[in-house]
Amino acid sequence: MKIHTNITIFGGTGDLTFRKLLPALYTMFNTGKLPENSRIVIIGRRDYDSGSYRALANDWVKKFSRLPYSAETFDAFSGQIDYFRMDLSNPKDYRRLDEYFSKDDIGSHIFYLAVAPRFFSVIADGLKTVEGACQGKVIIEKPFGENLEAAKKLNEELESHFGPEQIYRIDHYLGKEMVRNIQAIRFTNPIFTDIWNSRYIESVQISALEDVGVETRGGYYDASGALKDMVQNHLFQILSIVAMEQPEVFNSTHMHTAQVEVLKSLSPVGQAEIEDTLVLGQYEGYREEPLVSPDSNTETFAGLRLYIDNERWRGTPFYIRTGKKTGTRQMEVSIVFRRSMPEVEPNVLIIKIQPTEGVYLQFNIKRPGDTDDIIPTKMDFCQNCDLVHQLNTPEAYERLLTACINSERSWFSQWDQIEISWNYIEQLKQLFTKKGLKVYPYAPGTHGPKESNEFLARTGHQWME
Amino acid sequence: MKIHTNITIFGGTGDLTFRKLLPALYTMFNTGKLPENSRIVIIGRRDYDSGSYRALANDWVKKFSRLPYSAETFDAFSGQIDYFRMDLSNPKDYRRLDEYFSKDDIGSHIFYLAVAPRFFSVIADGLKTVEGACQGKVIIEKPFGENLEAAKKLNEELESHFGPEQIYRIDHYLGKEMVRNIQAIRFTNPIFTDIWNSRYIESVQISALEDVGVETRGGYYDASGALKDMVQNHLFQILSIVAMEQPEVFNSTHMHTAQVEVLKSLSPVGQAEIEDTLVLGQYEGYREEPLVSPDSNTETFAGLRLYIDNERWRGTPFYIRTGKKTGTRQMEVSIVFRRSMPEVEPNVLIIKIQPTEGVYLQFNIKRPGDTDDIIPTKMDFCQNCDLVHQLNTPEAYERLLTACINSERSWFSQWDQIEISWNYIEQLKQLFTKKGLKVYPYAPGTHGPKESNEFLARTGHQWME
Repeated sequence: MKIHTNITIFGGTGDLTFRKLLPALYTMFNTGKLPENSRIVIIGRRDYDSGSYRALANDWVKKFSRLPYSAETFDAFSGQIDYFRMDLSNPKDYRRLDEYFSKDDIGSHIFYLAVAPRFFSVIADGLKTVEGACQGKVIIEKPFGENLEAAKKLNEELESHFGPEQIYRIDHYLGKEMVRNIQAIRFTNPIFTDIWNSRYIESVQISALEDVGVETRGGYYDASGALKDMVQNHLFQILSIVAMEQPEVFNSTHMHTAQVEVLKSLSPVGQAEIEDTLVLGQYEGYREEPLVSPDSNTETFAGLRLYIDNERWRGTPFYIRTGKKTGTRQMEVSIVFRRSMPEVEPNVLIIKIQPTEGVYLQFNIKRPGDTDDIIPTKMDFCQNCDLVHQLNTPEAYERLLTACINSERSWFSQWDQIEISWNYIEQLKQLFTKKGLKVYPYAPGTHGPKESNEFLARTGHQWME
Repeated sequence: MKIHTNITIFGGTGDLTFRKLLPALYTMFNTGKLPENSRIVIIGRRDYDSGSYRALANDWVKKFSRLPYSAETFDAFSGQIDYFRMDLSNPKDYRRLDEYFSKDDIGSHIFYLAVAPRFFSVIADGLKTVEGACQGKVIIEKPFGENLEAAKKLNEELESHFGPEQIYRIDHYLGKEMVRNIQAIRFTNPIFTDIWNSRYIESVQISALEDVGVETRGGYYDASGALKDMVQNHLFQILSIVAMEQPEVFNSTHMHTAQVEVLKSLSPVGQAEIEDTLVLGQYEGYREEPLVSPDSNTETFAGLRLYIDNERWRGTPFYIRTGKKTGTRQMEVSIVFRRSMPEVEPNVLIIKIQPTEGVYLQFNIKRPGDTDDIIPTKMDFCQNCDLVHQLNTPEAYERLLTACINSERSWFSQWDQIEISWNYIEQLKQLFTKKGLKVYPYAPGTHGPKESNEFLARTGHQWME
């Protein structure tokens, strides 16, 4: 049989596959984004066959599908799913996999490594014996390793089997509609484009507050913390899109270069600056969470003040914050412009990323009536308030899988971005520890420790709420 | 009795008084804007006494009051209204008026000349014999004369009795909330302030479309036309606020100087340019309107392309249009920014003046979904959509009467503005006639003759609809 695209998912009985990948593939099938004659091969150790796996998949898709579920569509879709039982560390099983593949004429391979990073190299090794696999694409997700050293090593191993252009590193924030929109808003609106610099912009805030705590992920989270889990990947990606120079061409290479330049220009931080650069917090009750160490010092909140040392941004602080159990779920980028006069409020452009997708602009008008008082007001545009748009807006995994099929690399992280960010954050963390700074407790339902507000107040700013 | 402010209305039985002035004064009384111990003296030829006039006033106020009418409030208010019957051209009657006034201790006088301009000088003459009158304020309204020469003469006469700073020329558009807001929006929002020039702004449009025809005002209108009725006063006022340099201080003197500078900088127009400067139209059926000449050539629609010859505006056309019977009532100022790339829509800032009061911003985003297409979208802020604001927003006459009481001259036109504008428009009209250009017919319900669209198309633009 001729197969256009063969998508093999390692870790096919894990949470990611059930909650995200299968529902995304189902919707792609439903909306014509999955190429005809595709096949999804689910790799797992458990004792399913294709029939029993499809029945299981049915329940998950029903529960998590973005578009209304239909049994008929699911049947057509699930006909393309095969379950392949194997042990990831058994070389014989890869030969069986090779045999299985060899029965069909496969156009292209995608291997989704939905497994812990310790399996990356064993899978890569195994795939050497599978014909055509090393010409395929590999999708991996963070964590890319337990620490920077381990991640570098893993990356080298992967790149020794697959070329750098074959490896697709998912940062699912890059699949979010409004993250993709930042560059459109910046560069296609002259009212913003030419004032996107420190002369006009007083500060930039990137805020990602979560309502949930660590839930079932205490083990992973406790070894990682907010900086590694959110800042160095997702929020640094957003930072680099907000701050980059205008690429000559909007393709993945130029975009990538422009983004990396931002990361390279982050002002170095030393012992003297660390206290004004990083503030950490931990929600009360975190240490009692399952799988969390009872004396854990892991941060569940991080606030950063960063400077970008280039012509465009010298003098404008970039504030980044993220936290768990903050009583709200809200991710947004705020561009705070300089005031025209001290007594009026600043113009603020807010790009809302989630759960609301939209744009908000605070500007000044005269207070209505017989007065010349100036008061701030707002205009806003809500993208996902409208049902039609909602149905049109693919979920991040749909769009990233589609982008991978179409080899659109600008939707993915690249290794040098990850490495520079990781390095920078690791240095901050080391300085923090060396200086003996404290991880401040905060009450669940608040937006981090009060020290985080004082931290901004020191440069005359406050978090946008 | 001690009277704080005595407001005398000449023409007290006319439309303006019933529809606008009395309802405005009632609301001012209701909201505490009318100083305590004020008196309203209604001058008319008709045979009323204060009692019968108050009863009549009651009906009009009930019908036209902006805030909910209350009989109790009206009673308290109307106790301050006196009817004074007199013949405007009889000197004896002014002596009677003087006697009437002399019975009380009047703090200050305001004389509202709600009469045709031919009565201005006879009233001014008469008031010479009224003690204290020539230290009072005089409010007049357009038409300030039948033509520029007559207006100049009238103005000289008025100024010979009253100093220039005593004369308050009403342009009721200056009392509109969003007209007062233009300078606040321009100068307190850095995102707009620094790009308010021809480098960023491709064109400016000031559009005032009316739904009504000439109705009962055919006689006046036919002698005047759209240019005199709307453009040279109201729309030129708006033009000069939109285009002025930032005044050093926002007081009436500096504002006034900055506005006059704009009018003085209007590019001169000669025979060669008139066709690209002015397009006129007349709605079909206009000649059959009551009191309109059956072969009238008076314009009910005017479109203009003007240039301001200064550093800020060189190269940016200002389009002005106004028309009657256009099927819509809508007045707004549109700032059309230059595009960042030819294939995307421009940013447009629209200041909506009436009937909606608000601000609208068109900007570009990425089309939602798996695409990098750029589409325009909008944010808006509606000031009078919200009931609280509506109740807070005084009607133009309330705020202008209040401004006059408080001697706030920036809310009024000054003679040099009127003269320069009138002069400019009269020259255009003469060139138009001399060149034998046609007043184009247009169907009621359309936004003017199709030639008006062609007129803009010649410089690559189109009216914002």
